[in-house]
Amino acid sequence: MTIDDLMQAAPVIPVLVLDGEHDPVALAETLVEAGLRVLEVTLRTPQALDAIRAMARVPGAIVGAGTVLNERQLREVEAVGARFVVAPGLTESLTRAAMASELVYLPGIATAGDIMRGLDLGLTRFKFFPAEASGGLPAIRALAAPFGQVRFCPTGGITEASAPDYLAEPAIACIGGSWMVKKGMSLAAVGETAKRAAALSAS
Amino acid sequence: MTIDDLMQAAPVIPVLVLDGEHDPVALAETLVEAGLRVLEVTLRTPQALDAIRAMARVPGAIVGAGTVLNERQLREVEAVGARFVVAPGLTESLTRAAMASELVYLPGIATAGDIMRGLDLGLTRFKFFPAEASGGLPAIRALAAPFGQVRFCPTGGITEASAPDYLAEPAIACIGGSWMVKKGMSLAAVGETAKRAAALSAS
Amino acid sequence: MTIDDLMQAAPVIPVLVLDGEHDPVALAETLVEAGLRVLEVTLRTPQALDAIRAMARVPGAIVGAGTVLNERQLREVEAVGARFVVAPGLTESLTRAAMASELVYLPGIATAGDIMRGLDLGLTRFKFFPAEASGGLPAIRALAAPFGQVRFCPTGGITEASAPDYLAEPAIACIGGSWMVKKGMSLAAVGETAKRAAALSAS
Repeated sequence: MTIDDLMQAAPVIPVLVLDGEHDPVALAETLVEAGLRVLEVTLRTPQALDAIRAMARVPGAIVGAGTVLNERQLREVEAVGARFVVAPGLTESLTRAAMASELVYLPGIATAGDIMRGLDLGLTRFKFFPAEASGGLPAIRALAAPFGQVRFCPTGGITEASAPDYLAEPAIACIGGSWMVKKGMSLAAVGETAKRAAALSAS
Repeated sequence: MTIDDLMQAAPVIPVLVLDGEHDPVALAETLVEAGLRVLEVTLRTPQALDAIRAMARVPGAIVGAGTVLNERQLREVEAVGARFVVAPGLTESLTRAAMASELVYLPGIATAGDIMRGLDLGLTRFKFFPAEASGGLPAIRALAAPFGQVRFCPTGGITEASAPDYLAEPAIACIGGSWMVKKGMSLAAVGETAKRAAALSAS
Repeated sequence: MTIDDLMQAAPVIPVLVLDGEHDPVALAETLVEAGLRVLEVTLRTPQALDAIRAMARVPGAIVGAGTVLNERQLREVEAVGARFVVAPGLTESLTRAAMASELVYLPGIATAGDIMRGLDLGLTRFKFFPAEASGGLPAIRALAAPFGQVRFCPTGGITEASAPDYLAEPAIACIGGSWMVKKGMSLAAVGETAKRAAALSAS
């Protein structure tokens, strides 16, 4: 699997903060059934590693870890079966570890300097984070102009309402979002929201 | 003194650009008396080093230097008695010098990449600068989400009116501000404004 | 030629994306005649290198390359006669190559950390990019405060209407813009718009 395979497998990547409310396997089955195959489990809760291990066995699911900050965490999520890692920012240390591994790697950027450092290291696919707080679509358009070869996965503050505008942008391959799985939502509601997200089309 | 001691000593750190209008010692006494013990003297004026030396002897004052850009400046302010240094951004060179010194160190960040580079170097406390121009509270909330262990001291554009909202944010330990000491304010007015700032509570 | 010579040669640097619509030499002659001598040809189109070579021979023109991302591109534009290079961001690798060359160098920054890394490398003149999407004038004022020795060339989203406000800012030496040369504009229209831009004064 390449980073482009990952970014094209679904228009929206659910960013999951699992705190025990939903059973990870049932949640993964619901999202995959709805058409969202790429699942990012953030390392923000103690349950994350066990959830990745369990969800990775759900047929059709492509399960990875988010909020991966350093090589130690990369090794941990690799060991439990994560197939990709997402980082909020880009560091040379994590990038070298990720590129030496079998994991697909999506690091976050927010500035042109970040992108140039990524290009120097051989990367052309980046998370834009935090998307809304860093200037939203106008910022992505401005950053995309000098970097024709780059594609983005904006994440952070994107809603069901703003998702279509993001996905219509040529430089955007997919988006990350958390609106499909919120506290208090039933699995049925998750499934319905996820189906609408899966029906969005990337440009 | 640890960085947390510093950030908990007062809810607001006055950021002082001393240009000769106020006597540094009288100013420090006024601010400490009002309850603002942590005083950041920026290296933006020729008077700064002498002012730090004089203010450091005011009982109760914790005096440091702001706008410290490199190791040379760090040595200069260390020599005149500064107890902490604040930098607008985070570089590896200054960070290594600061961590090898006895000084408490608060470097500025504006992106997730900055924070990850800081974490790699062993830091978890950061100035968020320039706070308002970099997206304000929504940006801090978005950056705080993946960095649960990090605490911020936003600085830049914060006013007496916006200070309480900043301080109510769990990820914010204290804020930097310059509204307590403005051109043309009497020491009595400084004292009154500082008392109101000292009465604010961090979350 | 120094970076300050470049930044003082004209208040506005046209940022040119040449796609074959205008003849590069006629375009350069029109802009120079109007008073805009500094011409940045972005490496975003296949025509860019040939255009730089041809435009560099126009009397009075100071022709350089924009969107220079790495040392390889720096060598390419140097070989065709570019006198300066502009980069969207600042990396140590490109900075070291540029400073070892005869080329004048204007790297982009967006954060205080970027500026401090630049200062560590011996730079004090920076493009602020993308200007509007990174916070515009308030962000530049906030960043300029702790960096009194730094001068900026904001670029990205600036219009004929907003240009005067940018140029009135003391920390801004010149600006980059693309409104002088747009698709569908005749050379006569380019000349008129460029004359108005050349008549603006930097602070």
